[in-house]
Amino acid sequence: MRSFSGRDILTLKDFERHEFLRVFEVAEQLEPIARSRRNGDLLREKTLVTAFYQPSTRTRLAHEAAMLRLGGRVTGFSDAQMTRAGDFYQESIKDTVKMLEFYGDAIVMRHFQEGAPREAAHWVSVPIINGGDGWGEHPTQILTDLYTVWRERGRIDGLKWLAVGDMRMRTMHSLGYGLTKFDSPVTFVAPPEMSLTDEFKDELAHYSLDFSEAEHVEQVIGEADVILVEPVVQPDYTKSRDERHGQVAHTPDNYKITQELLETKAKSDAILLHSLPRMDEVPPGVDVTRWSRYWPEAFNGVVVRMAILALVLGAME
Amino acid sequence: MRSFSGRDILTLKDFERHEFLRVFEVAEQLEPIARSRRNGDLLREKTLVTAFYQPSTRTRLAHEAAMLRLGGRVTGFSDAQMTRAGDFYQESIKDTVKMLEFYGDAIVMRHFQEGAPREAAHWVSVPIINGGDGWGEHPTQILTDLYTVWRERGRIDGLKWLAVGDMRMRTMHSLGYGLTKFDSPVTFVAPPEMSLTDEFKDELAHYSLDFSEAEHVEQVIGEADVILVEPVVQPDYTKSRDERHGQVAHTPDNYKITQELLETKAKSDAILLHSLPRMDEVPPGVDVTRWSRYWPEAFNGVVVRMAILALVLGAME
Amino acid sequence: MRSFSGRDILTLKDFERHEFLRVFEVAEQLEPIARSRRNGDLLREKTLVTAFYQPSTRTRLAHEAAMLRLGGRVTGFSDAQMTRAGDFYQESIKDTVKMLEFYGDAIVMRHFQEGAPREAAHWVSVPIINGGDGWGEHPTQILTDLYTVWRERGRIDGLKWLAVGDMRMRTMHSLGYGLTKFDSPVTFVAPPEMSLTDEFKDELAHYSLDFSEAEHVEQVIGEADVILVEPVVQPDYTKSRDERHGQVAHTPDNYKITQELLETKAKSDAILLHSLPRMDEVPPGVDVTRWSRYWPEAFNGVVVRMAILALVLGAME
Repeated sequence: MRSFSGRDILTLKDFERHEFLRVFEVAEQLEPIARSRRNGDLLREKTLVTAFYQPSTRTRLAHEAAMLRLGGRVTGFSDAQMTRAGDFYQESIKDTVKMLEFYGDAIVMRHFQEGAPREAAHWVSVPIINGGDGWGEHPTQILTDLYTVWRERGRIDGLKWLAVGDMRMRTMHSLGYGLTKFDSPVTFVAPPEMSLTDEFKDELAHYSLDFSEAEHVEQVIGEADVILVEPVVQPDYTKSRDERHGQVAHTPDNYKITQELLETKAKSDAILLHSLPRMDEVPPGVDVTRWSRYWPEAFNGVVVRMAILALVLGAME
Repeated sequence: MRSFSGRDILTLKDFERHEFLRVFEVAEQLEPIARSRRNGDLLREKTLVTAFYQPSTRTRLAHEAAMLRLGGRVTGFSDAQMTRAGDFYQESIKDTVKMLEFYGDAIVMRHFQEGAPREAAHWVSVPIINGGDGWGEHPTQILTDLYTVWRERGRIDGLKWLAVGDMRMRTMHSLGYGLTKFDSPVTFVAPPEMSLTDEFKDELAHYSLDFSEAEHVEQVIGEADVILVEPVVQPDYTKSRDERHGQVAHTPDNYKITQELLETKAKSDAILLHSLPRMDEVPPGVDVTRWSRYWPEAFNGVVVRMAILALVLGAME
Repeated sequence: MRSFSGRDILTLKDFERHEFLRVFEVAEQLEPIARSRRNGDLLREKTLVTAFYQPSTRTRLAHEAAMLRLGGRVTGFSDAQMTRAGDFYQESIKDTVKMLEFYGDAIVMRHFQEGAPREAAHWVSVPIINGGDGWGEHPTQILTDLYTVWRERGRIDGLKWLAVGDMRMRTMHSLGYGLTKFDSPVTFVAPPEMSLTDEFKDELAHYSLDFSEAEHVEQVIGEADVILVEPVVQPDYTKSRDERHGQVAHTPDNYKITQELLETKAKSDAILLHSLPRMDEVPPGVDVTRWSRYWPEAFNGVVVRMAILALVLGAME
């Protein structure tokens, strides 16, 4: 069995089934530290470098919080414009990360360019964690989603998934790759212009994933044990930040998970996941229903990063 | 007596007299840690989250420094544009803080919108510290000012205050609420368009504060034991940052505290407070006079935040 | 011998020969901490404040990483626009640093204005480290370069330097001042409009530095034991960030260090230094040649800052 120590977390494609489970077990083991709100010292001798070429709240802070919960330290940048590397010189990934590797013992990177974390991993000796790379992948987010299900149901196998959102997005890629390792059929629902690419469908078929597509959430929500939702409407970037403020998004009904839909169609024990931020695809009224799990999911986002950091930094085997 | 543990610090309106004194006592007790420049470990297991939707130097860094002095950790954001929450999605306060509560054990929030910290406190289980909310309040700043007076004079009661600045501002609100708990008459001096609102005057009267208004600093400075000054002139935002650079502000003489005025009119033992940054309402020449206390006030800004953090995080009772 | 404890690191002009060597010895002594990737606790009670009025990746993060490697804490700002001090009020250096001195135990400052760190040092009791001040100096970078040479060769004396770049830049100033303390002849190569100023030449002569100027790198590279390169081409700031992206810089051949030039002309044991980021003055192909030392130089950037921080904070004598 490959050790996690020193390993890059770039994609879920090369994650083996037992490796998912190992991450979940370690997460479960470390969870009491987060729950008790008492930072420990498992990683007290280690520094995490955050290399965020794009703004992020959840991914960056969840990694930082995880590191601090384990007694570690954090340095880095949260916006490429804050760095000479990003703004003025458009420095190569190589030049930047061959510097960053001396500033800490693992690097979590978000980049607008697909494949950037992989290129970074090529050049340095410390583990690179992919914090989202363009249209590529977002492995730690999907590990969080899978953990949330595993933690509650004790298993991933045998549960049916419904995924709603933009199927070209990185989370959907990681979700697809992740589910191929389990006995977990999945139905994808997306607006036509956001549907699965042929290339991605070929890959999923190659990995024997039992997947299908549907047009309306309503048609398929009744089957789902897990409902994972992402926005299908984007902010209107042609408007200024101020103009956008308070602007109402209009997610078409086909891709909206309303309280009424859940009450009339969903399984009574289905789990509703959303990594947030959201537009209006999941109205706030849903928050207090029995289906919503996005707050525990946010908590698990820290716990899973604790597990990943402990593993790649060699503090857990 | 209500415990401070787990408590939100949103306003000084609901602070009781003995609670002010408790904060001051704890601050005095922790002061040697800051003075000796040796970080301790009272909060070594705790993480503070900074949620700054507007730039700030003093408030953010004073909280960070306080947390570090007590051995704690800090994560968060210093500008909403650095977050997807702030910039792209205009995420609701609820959605943002229900994530942040898992990243640390207390949240200090600055927000352009009055009431935002209160809304945040509604949604989360960790203490929210109001680091300034629009026109609302700035309780930790005024706690710092009051502590600076208490530490030097051993009391707040029986001292006369003069407050100069924009009376619609949050610090003035917190000052007014704070002084209602003490036997401390106050005179407010402001340009007409920045004077006390009727609503605020009604409130102050309701709480039995002995306050009055005057037009000129010169008329009333002779009575004051404590002179608290804020800018009445704002930078000219119609100009670019570069054009503003080096631009001279012109505070009208009525609201200026000059060395000459202090020497000819002020009590010889009066205390001059300014939370900074300043325009030209207190010229640099005043810095070396016996009246200026803004550097000790800056030091106390850390000490008081140490006390607040120790209290709300349950490390001191 | 002056103690380093409490001392400002503003310029290499006033550094004595034995002080360089002391920094190198301490760096060598602390190096195993960085190499073993295990943060220690030499500075566990100390906080470093980063006051970066201009973006920086290497200088800021190298200081942060160094502080964390020694168990210390970091707070501060990485862009003046993130602070009210920098953006809105154009607060005086004095007002800003008289606040910052209470937030930590040493301040590293980068400023667009030459002399800003010196002015800061005038006002506060904690050590100020110059992280680059306009056209002024960049002492910690050149200490890193000198250490890289000393660490490999065991000496600075008797080695010939070639410096290529913009001679009006701060690193060149610090290099010139640094080399005056050693028996180290240096040749400067720069485009005519970037050549040594008369004032700087007079200073170097005054300090008995054995220096000369040449037009082409090719003419003089054969003599050099150490080749220190900086960009001579700047990004085209008249273009937007997006337009600049991927733009190819065109460093004239006279100032370019190519693999072919190194192979045909350079000493076989010459050391090539570049503090990075680079434009195209050192093509990536050079990275794998025997001459390149910029990655070890980046590592040493952390180690030298560890030494400086340990010294000025009084943890090493």
